[in-house]
Amino acid sequence: MVSRRSFLTSAAGALVSAGVVARNAAAQIPEAPLTASPATEPPPAPASGPPFQPVVTLNGWSLPWRMNGDVKEFHLIAQPVVREIAPGMTAHLWGYNGQAPGPTIECVAGDRVRLFVTNQLPEYTSIHWHGVRLPHGMDGVTGLTQPPIQPGETWVYEFDMQHSGTFMYHPHADDMVQLAMGLMGSIIVHPRDPAEHAVDRDFVFLMSAYDIEPGSYTPRVHTHTDFNLWTWNSRVFPGIAPLAVRQGDRVRVRIGNLTMTNHPIHLHGHSFEVTGTDGGWVPPTARWPEATIDVGVGQMRAIEFVADAPGDWAFHCHKTHHTMNAMGHEVMTSIGVDFEEAAEKLRRLIPGYMVMGDRGMAEMASMQMELPENTLPMMTGEGPYGPIGMGGMFTVVKVRADQPPGDYTDPGWYEPPLGSMAYRSES
Amino acid sequence: MVSRRSFLTSAAGALVSAGVVARNAAAQIPEAPLTASPATEPPPAPASGPPFQPVVTLNGWSLPWRMNGDVKEFHLIAQPVVREIAPGMTAHLWGYNGQAPGPTIECVAGDRVRLFVTNQLPEYTSIHWHGVRLPHGMDGVTGLTQPPIQPGETWVYEFDMQHSGTFMYHPHADDMVQLAMGLMGSIIVHPRDPAEHAVDRDFVFLMSAYDIEPGSYTPRVHTHTDFNLWTWNSRVFPGIAPLAVRQGDRVRVRIGNLTMTNHPIHLHGHSFEVTGTDGGWVPPTARWPEATIDVGVGQMRAIEFVADAPGDWAFHCHKTHHTMNAMGHEVMTSIGVDFEEAAEKLRRLIPGYMVMGDRGMAEMASMQMELPENTLPMMTGEGPYGPIGMGGMFTVVKVRADQPPGDYTDPGWYEPPLGSMAYRSES
Amino acid sequence: MVSRRSFLTSAAGALVSAGVVARNAAAQIPEAPLTASPATEPPPAPASGPPFQPVVTLNGWSLPWRMNGDVKEFHLIAQPVVREIAPGMTAHLWGYNGQAPGPTIECVAGDRVRLFVTNQLPEYTSIHWHGVRLPHGMDGVTGLTQPPIQPGETWVYEFDMQHSGTFMYHPHADDMVQLAMGLMGSIIVHPRDPAEHAVDRDFVFLMSAYDIEPGSYTPRVHTHTDFNLWTWNSRVFPGIAPLAVRQGDRVRVRIGNLTMTNHPIHLHGHSFEVTGTDGGWVPPTARWPEATIDVGVGQMRAIEFVADAPGDWAFHCHKTHHTMNAMGHEVMTSIGVDFEEAAEKLRRLIPGYMVMGDRGMAEMASMQMELPENTLPMMTGEGPYGPIGMGGMFTVVKVRADQPPGDYTDPGWYEPPLGSMAYRSES
Repeated sequence: MVSRRSFLTSAAGALVSAGVVARNAAAQIPEAPLTASPATEPPPAPASGPPFQPVVTLNGWSLPWRMNGDVKEFHLIAQPVVREIAPGMTAHLWGYNGQAPGPTIECVAGDRVRLFVTNQLPEYTSIHWHGVRLPHGMDGVTGLTQPPIQPGETWVYEFDMQHSGTFMYHPHADDMVQLAMGLMGSIIVHPRDPAEHAVDRDFVFLMSAYDIEPGSYTPRVHTHTDFNLWTWNSRVFPGIAPLAVRQGDRVRVRIGNLTMTNHPIHLHGHSFEVTGTDGGWVPPTARWPEATIDVGVGQMRAIEFVADAPGDWAFHCHKTHHTMNAMGHEVMTSIGVDFEEAAEKLRRLIPGYMVMGDRGMAEMASMQMELPENTLPMMTGEGPYGPIGMGGMFTVVKVRADQPPGDYTDPGWYEPPLGSMAYRSES
Repeated sequence: MVSRRSFLTSAAGALVSAGVVARNAAAQIPEAPLTASPATEPPPAPASGPPFQPVVTLNGWSLPWRMNGDVKEFHLIAQPVVREIAPGMTAHLWGYNGQAPGPTIECVAGDRVRLFVTNQLPEYTSIHWHGVRLPHGMDGVTGLTQPPIQPGETWVYEFDMQHSGTFMYHPHADDMVQLAMGLMGSIIVHPRDPAEHAVDRDFVFLMSAYDIEPGSYTPRVHTHTDFNLWTWNSRVFPGIAPLAVRQGDRVRVRIGNLTMTNHPIHLHGHSFEVTGTDGGWVPPTARWPEATIDVGVGQMRAIEFVADAPGDWAFHCHKTHHTMNAMGHEVMTSIGVDFEEAAEKLRRLIPGYMVMGDRGMAEMASMQMELPENTLPMMTGEGPYGPIGMGGMFTVVKVRADQPPGDYTDPGWYEPPLGSMAYRSES
Repeated sequence: MVSRRSFLTSAAGALVSAGVVARNAAAQIPEAPLTASPATEPPPAPASGPPFQPVVTLNGWSLPWRMNGDVKEFHLIAQPVVREIAPGMTAHLWGYNGQAPGPTIECVAGDRVRLFVTNQLPEYTSIHWHGVRLPHGMDGVTGLTQPPIQPGETWVYEFDMQHSGTFMYHPHADDMVQLAMGLMGSIIVHPRDPAEHAVDRDFVFLMSAYDIEPGSYTPRVHTHTDFNLWTWNSRVFPGIAPLAVRQGDRVRVRIGNLTMTNHPIHLHGHSFEVTGTDGGWVPPTARWPEATIDVGVGQMRAIEFVADAPGDWAFHCHKTHHTMNAMGHEVMTSIGVDFEEAAEKLRRLIPGYMVMGDRGMAEMASMQMELPENTLPMMTGEGPYGPIGMGGMFTVVKVRADQPPGDYTDPGWYEPPLGSMAYRSES
């Protein structure tokens, strides 16, 4: 489903590769690498500056920077993008540098960063660095701390990254629309000392929601609560990459919520702890063991666990309508006709009569329905033991004894399949 | 309101009683006790295996097991059931062993369990043991870790219960439908050492929601957020049993949420702590004092408090529309007509004219409205001082100095009534 | 926007001032001061009883008391009130003592309080002292612990305030209606030892939501989830007072949620901790650093931070539709017409053709639309750098090096404006 790309790093730190277009190679403004791919980019080790273990952005990538003296320079371009939500469906969103969400910005506590922001949207924007402690005038709130960034303009933010942690960037201008269109990205500030908060695998993604009518491409942006596509990094199952780890790894997953409702994230087969928020690191005395963590809107939660049990472990939002794709509302509800015995009578009259859904909806998972163009099935995903019948915010943590380290992408979803152990009773 | 039943335990651990039908007494598959009663079953001490203090399932019961060598064998039957939601209303749900929710499964950390699951539903199913750490192939995710359990089949799950705590079981097959129909139950794994985490009273219930149109019996299953019956163990006030405890008792209440929204559970007159989640036990250093705990979807929260104040203490979800029964939407809103003085003028023209609701809705609590068949009043419950005007997720923690230990069921709702202390001013 | 008032305290503890009407100066029932102002009242030091540092109620005030022997006597009057939601819009609510929310009740742990409650509403009511541990008969649950307080009656509650903390008062009678109409207030119980939990600035507000159709004055009260006005102390931006503090201050903000959904409260530029709930004080070992705290329904969260960074820091609910005012639903969605290139073609045919919203909604923030009477713009607020484009649950924490202590009210919203530091790139 996803293809591997590799970055070519030039001596000056500029990046050129297939799928990455250098846009402004020479000027004072650093170039802005773009990508058209929704694949999980295997993160390169930092080309310059202090060392850190890079994070893996689920179905995303990290933004290369250039060093300008002691300053790390990044260039974000806010622009309309085309995002593949899952194979079979694309959406017209607003994003950064070719995709939505935008690339992850990675740096190290103590780094001074200079962030160039070019506005290629049809309306003004700004960027708020959510959770980052910085000078007031760099906070990116239109009207309050700066004028808006007009279409065509490039603005510059510059500040020291004082604290390690997981943060987010998104506009603070026409917020409801610009978040509903997908403008957002993750910020990882690694500790100065790589031994601090070290883990074996480190993932990040943002949750976002869209209201895209089946058959169309563009979100309706005045939807307050009637979203119908619940995504992780603007992807839905089975389009969300699995999280592949080696048995025994200490794993961190950093999860930000920029939808408009809570998402209770449930991991199978393991107990985890929240070790970080958008406010900092949770001290060990304050941590709770959890199987399901409710991530509030605007919150970031970094969870950590030891992947001690091999297997394909479901990892999903526990709201069942968030693990379905669009169209749920349109399906007629006829379950329980049996109770009134009406269906039974109908069957006597019309042999073979079948009411869709009268015995539940499980049949939907394998049924081929005629769908409008650019529409995903509601319940989907083929696993080693048949249809999984999920969509939306669902993926799998793949724990294998022999998983090659560093191979985070496209590990062959359920390969090798681990044995089903539950069995049919013969008696 | 509820009647007491007693179990008769046979030598082999098989159970026969009025209201409990032995279904498969002889075979290799252990029998599956059933019940038709929504009463709170006084829990028997464990008949075999290591000792533990049994939990009280609110308006429910614990599933008897049989020992087969060192293995505890349980038998769950997924099937259509009729559940009394409260006196005056029944619902056609899907449950286990005669009721919805299914019986509580109780065992002890270190136990090996073998769980037979028979599917008598009209569609395939599976059981996921939410929060339990177990081998991947026993995780119960259809398509991912096992094929579906087809109608008529019996499947077997077998694993060691490694950790004490509170967990849940529910299908991971056609999730949205099967949870919306009521398929769920609690799992209590008691500590091996009964002194660990010991309390004087220990209760458990699951929160579920249904969309049952007034006058009908079967939930609409494609309701994402428009549920109208908010239940604790598929019961609504005044059908929910009170929690009867003795003054000074240390009380634990384990609360799981399998609805599609958060429920902020509020206890009157006491401060409590969350001591356990579906991920394990919360260390004492990490606990917060709370009067209201927001239980996220898919989460379990065990709260503990010392019942130091005698009285009838309200215990409820703090969302006001969750302490009402259905029909809320249908009532015309006419409050504030007074403000426009229109009602006043109408009264001058039509002596005795009354607009329902023009002065609020308190009058509803005592009004006899013509209701469709099988429909509960919206606001109900008669207390010692008049109508309580509640429905849904509301009950009472009864703290009495002289409450007989073990008498958890039907303790006579508000008997003896404790004195009202607020008083009408005479001046 | 707001005007300053000063209280005149009589020898007997009775209060008379402009804007405060003494209603019952002579009798056994203590007088009930009223106010018609939505301004933030600078809190007076306690006139009698043990010393404490008073709290600042955002767009509200604290209720004066009289000492009767060793008992602090307060008098609340539940009544219809007119509340200014923001300049340009008033609402007909139910409140206490002239405003909604009612005045904050402040006392000290160990105080004995006697609370007179007069019902001037058109239906019965009661008061529940949410979070306060008190004798069962004083708990204020209609039907369960007392008969209802009928219109015209005055009832008396009396108990010891055993624990310091932040609590709430609201009816437990016809709950859905009476909360939807605005009946609520804050309770602050200060520690007996003023050094305990001491901070430099201490604020409190309650979150409430209303469903007021544009052009009308009275909330629809059967709205379960379709609220359209999201308020802090029944005010919306730009009507919510800023929180003015001095650089270096330790600041506490106590936030109660009596809406029907979670509010994730986000503070810019600082990391904070939750130090208290409606259940008590959170021990230091259990605290998490946070930038966004999800406040559940019925919960109170006291957050604390050191205001170390000067600036105007946005402080708001992170659900974007909660930082907008009503009318969001009515706006036609036409964004993305560009994608289909239809708009472009239209513009070729009709020069100057403009589709409202086809490039996002940012233009709304400065557009003058014709609004119905008594209706607020959806996106509003003028900052030092142009339109802020916010409504609802949004205000600003103003941190200044030279802020005069004690000057909490009307500090001149963004005066002095701090410099914008982000800049337009010239290259």
